[in-house]
Amino acid sequence: MDDNKLNTWKESRKRRIRNLSSKNLLSGIIAHDWTALSAAITLVESFKETDFREAQELIKLCLPYSGNSVRIGITGVPGVGKSTFIEAFGELIANKENKIAVLAIDPSSSLSKGSILGDKTRMNMLSMNENVFIRPSPAGSTLGGVARKTREAIILCEAAGFNYIFIETVGVGQSETVVKSMVDFFLLLMLSGAGDELQGIKKGIMEMADAVVITKADGENSKKSEIAAREYRNAIHLFPPNENNWIPKVLTCSAIDNFGLDEIHQMIKSFENQTKNNGSFEFNRRSQDRTWFLESLKELIYSNFFSKKSVKEFIKEIENKVANGEITSFQGAELVFDLYKKNETGI
Amino acid sequence: MDDNKLNTWKESRKRRIRNLSSKNLLSGIIAHDWTALSAAITLVESFKETDFREAQELIKLCLPYSGNSVRIGITGVPGVGKSTFIEAFGELIANKENKIAVLAIDPSSSLSKGSILGDKTRMNMLSMNENVFIRPSPAGSTLGGVARKTREAIILCEAAGFNYIFIETVGVGQSETVVKSMVDFFLLLMLSGAGDELQGIKKGIMEMADAVVITKADGENSKKSEIAAREYRNAIHLFPPNENNWIPKVLTCSAIDNFGLDEIHQMIKSFENQTKNNGSFEFNRRSQDRTWFLESLKELIYSNFFSKKSVKEFIKEIENKVANGEITSFQGAELVFDLYKKNETGI
Repeated sequence: MDDNKLNTWKESRKRRIRNLSSKNLLSGIIAHDWTALSAAITLVESFKETDFREAQELIKLCLPYSGNSVRIGITGVPGVGKSTFIEAFGELIANKENKIAVLAIDPSSSLSKGSILGDKTRMNMLSMNENVFIRPSPAGSTLGGVARKTREAIILCEAAGFNYIFIETVGVGQSETVVKSMVDFFLLLMLSGAGDELQGIKKGIMEMADAVVITKADGENSKKSEIAAREYRNAIHLFPPNENNWIPKVLTCSAIDNFGLDEIHQMIKSFENQTKNNGSFEFNRRSQDRTWFLESLKELIYSNFFSKKSVKEFIKEIENKVANGEITSFQGAELVFDLYKKNETGI
Repeated sequence: MDDNKLNTWKESRKRRIRNLSSKNLLSGIIAHDWTALSAAITLVESFKETDFREAQELIKLCLPYSGNSVRIGITGVPGVGKSTFIEAFGELIANKENKIAVLAIDPSSSLSKGSILGDKTRMNMLSMNENVFIRPSPAGSTLGGVARKTREAIILCEAAGFNYIFIETVGVGQSETVVKSMVDFFLLLMLSGAGDELQGIKKGIMEMADAVVITKADGENSKKSEIAAREYRNAIHLFPPNENNWIPKVLTCSAIDNFGLDEIHQMIKSFENQTKNNGSFEFNRRSQDRTWFLESLKELIYSNFFSKKSVKEFIKEIENKVANGEITSFQGAELVFDLYKKNETGI
């Protein structure tokens, strides 16, 4: 191709990409064009009203091509080595001819911005792997909003042919439940000493995990990690069993020594086999869809209600009365609701 | 008093009690009259619209007299011996000049009715103790409704001078979270073998407990229970710490041998001291009030929305489309919400 032709082609490609119509993007995505995928996710993340409609249309078009992946949630407190783990573990899976998308949920990112940049730089090596697509956490003012965008990005990534989707929690202690509600497998990373590092984990998260993986099991930590793993294994049988009959596993690994990572991959594959065979894989996804539908609906109703200025101010007033024990919480709720009903016809 | 006078007095008392005005009931309640308390709780539990207004007024009047109790949630799967435990433990506390109210939350009671009767007969001995007031679970079609009534009964009981309120979960695996959200101390009863009996406990409940008590630690079970207690104690330090810095305790007891019960009482007293000293007792109650206010408000808004017949039918239709992957959960939510907005002015 001579320079002129190349330039013309480049221009037309730019135009094509810039033309963010849902149909154009769809053909790009299902042709596994990553530029189209990136543009599509940008569209989903946009706050513009027109982009929003187009994005919803695109996701709908992608739905028939989606679903063929294992969605893995990865969580753990800061310092546990999440990015290092994802980099090493992602590399291992990617080199087995899998295509991996790494997404993140960080409800604090719109404020701090720090973690977005952090992610990008920390996963330098993995981002260069041709089978790996890394996308930082979308911005957003509410956890619900951020979560919805990530959930939609999952569908786009699946339509673009990715068969492993990692969803990383970046913030501290807020997004675990939300991530759990959009993944097939929930992985909790832990350090070998059990104490201070648990501070960031919310109650109930431990019991949600399909696997606990003790990181940094190398050098001096090696023995300590094995002991910790044994303790967790003993504790696991005291937990209520999972709905899908999967018994949570406890493993150790080291990203530096490249140790234990393949075992984690094998474990996830046997989880996939087992839950697909007993039907709980599909069952879980369907009930997640249902939950998300109802949650989204409630969110819409609720924000429609709370966005009214008069309501907002009145709620603050009533909240104080409830906190001071002047009225019961239910009476407070009724007072606010009465105001709403009165104004309802005027919307 | 001669017979005539007595009869006149009885009649006037009946009339007084039958006159369920909030002011009459209030004076009875704060005079620690149990008949008035019973009538007040009946008023709270009534489904009549006029009773409802009167009940809300009464609760408001009782609020300044409420709060002076330790609210203890007691849960555990059927067969763990909840009623036997409450009978023995309640007896012990009552005999130390405490006044105990035993309330229950049973979301299934409106259907089965079985557990209500069961409770009454099972706690025969305790119900005869003059310091103990037992009230079966209120009926109701939703867990939220049942929970609200129980929460309001707590306020009435406190105003009537009870300083220990037990809230027992009766149904299986549904009401634990709700009970947790209305108590100061959450007690999980367990059996010594860890296995099948965990089936009824939902994920995350274990980590919510302020104490795990292993019941039936007598006879052949004695040794097994101690081993189980040790295992749970080892497991506890693997859990994330509580917000109030309280480290959950693991104890064993036997209602038959009257063993371990006083230790449980001592533990609850030291919990009360510790959390009242560090302020988390009050903090927890305030945040519970706030949560209940917002939850009640949401409940009102949602039921206003979901009770509309057109909405109900449309939701079913959309839910199927979401489950079949025809549209995304968010698109489904938008479609339903659009219908709502269209009709909003016509309410």
